[in-house]
Amino acid sequence: MKLEMNASEVEGYIDEVFPQIADYGFCVENLEVGKISVSMKITDKHLRPGGTVSGPTMFTLADCASYLIVLAHIGKVALAVTTNLNINFISKPEGDLIADAQLLKLGKRLAVCEISIRSKVTETLVAHATATYSIPPSR
Amino acid sequence: MKLEMNASEVEGYIDEVFPQIADYGFCVENLEVGKISVSMKITDKHLRPGGTVSGPTMFTLADCASYLIVLAHIGKVALAVTTNLNINFISKPEGDLIADAQLLKLGKRLAVCEISIRSKVTETLVAHATATYSIPPSR
Amino acid sequence: MKLEMNASEVEGYIDEVFPQIADYGFCVENLEVGKISVSMKITDKHLRPGGTVSGPTMFTLADCASYLIVLAHIGKVALAVTTNLNINFISKPEGDLIADAQLLKLGKRLAVCEISIRSKVTETLVAHATATYSIPPSR
Amino acid sequence: MKLEMNASEVEGYIDEVFPQIADYGFCVENLEVGKISVSMKITDKHLRPGGTVSGPTMFTLADCASYLIVLAHIGKVALAVTTNLNINFISKPEGDLIADAQLLKLGKRLAVCEISIRSKVTETLVAHATATYSIPPSR
Repeated sequence: MKLEMNASEVEGYIDEVFPQIADYGFCVENLEVGKISVSMKITDKHLRPGGTVSGPTMFTLADCASYLIVLAHIGKVALAVTTNLNINFISKPEGDLIADAQLLKLGKRLAVCEISIRSKVTETLVAHATATYSIPPSR
Repeated sequence: MKLEMNASEVEGYIDEVFPQIADYGFCVENLEVGKISVSMKITDKHLRPGGTVSGPTMFTLADCASYLIVLAHIGKVALAVTTNLNINFISKPEGDLIADAQLLKLGKRLAVCEISIRSKVTETLVAHATATYSIPPSR
Repeated sequence: MKLEMNASEVEGYIDEVFPQIADYGFCVENLEVGKISVSMKITDKHLRPGGTVSGPTMFTLADCASYLIVLAHIGKVALAVTTNLNINFISKPEGDLIADAQLLKLGKRLAVCEISIRSKVTETLVAHATATYSIPPSR
Repeated sequence: MKLEMNASEVEGYIDEVFPQIADYGFCVENLEVGKISVSMKITDKHLRPGGTVSGPTMFTLADCASYLIVLAHIGKVALAVTTNLNINFISKPEGDLIADAQLLKLGKRLAVCEISIRSKVTETLVAHATATYSIPPSR
């Protein structure tokens, strides 16, 4: 495994193809072979009753972090597609979040990632996910 | 199992506690014991590269439909919490979507739902999910 | 979608390639396009404390039923591989079990199945699973 | 979090309540707060066509390791029940296996574990799972 894009290329790619998620405030904090850390600024629009960050918001962060670690390794030509995402919500999130995603597998046809989402301040685990991406044959 | 809220009470409850998701254009199309159908108007903001509806958007629809079927049966006093959601993305979605959620289990502590998301026009299955909710003891 | 094997061919194939699971007492009760029903005789060796059927036993039944419905459609030449299985245990099983598996997707590279396991006598849902299979390119 | 049982108590408990799985050759290699390592001797009966360890066998190992780490922390009086297990099969297993399970959450009502299964010799990741257990109120 080696990287095909660096952190700023990966972030630039988000802005280009996902303008809709620009307002999520994602930031690639770290990128190395097999691993990425993506932070997210939490604002009112991501909150649920009781002040908790919504499940869909955490899903978005998990999916984005793992999508980016896959793209960082296969290059932006390829359009990987999420085929499965399983998420466990562990504890009530507080404040900004950080997702650490790692590649469990990078095959020719499938990539599998594991993602831990923590509160940036307290480092408490708030959610844990695994995601599978289908990699197009044109790769 | 019996319903504690009807379709319009359930929709009113969304508007009240989830103002953030008002712009998702969810509509409860049908509600009966153990089953709900929730439709969603797709607009540009839910789209991904290639014109496909984003994974997070489908997650939101799946989570919302299953959350509502749980609330419809336990009443709005209770605050159920999503503990797990597993989603398989099956085919490229086109146009507005409809989610059919059914209760697989409604226990004292846990509720489990199964959700099929289809294109409203073609009826093609675009995603399938299962979700678990923890029901607070104060119930 | 069309069937490449009938029920007895599918059962014969199990005996041939999975002699280890012969003692599970699986029986293909019904097979049609997109759907299969596989029953299982429960004996002492599948039981857990409290007389419940073990999780691994229900996993085996879910995996077997969905594997067989995939093979029935792609033919026995192909060796499909389980890539993901997510199972929710719903209620305490009693007596013999029956698994109804349906194909949610049969793509060139991936097949996705949904499986409901019920008590054969009471028809109570005891477990629900989804499974993904990778289909080899040589197909 | 603190341990209520040590490694040999945990192993003794398996032999007592799960005599059926004695022939799986499970061995608790390490147990500390929040973590357990359980090894498994692979024999012919766990093999699938192509010489690969069967999915159900890896499910059993994942479920057992995570069940034991939960019991080690709540004590053997309690009967935790698996409510959900999601497993990704990553690569073809070879030889004996070792499962490293860690507690992601130990709540009053739910425990969530993450499990990595590796080949004991090559240390290659062969499967990754997450599992949820319901903890009875009598705790």
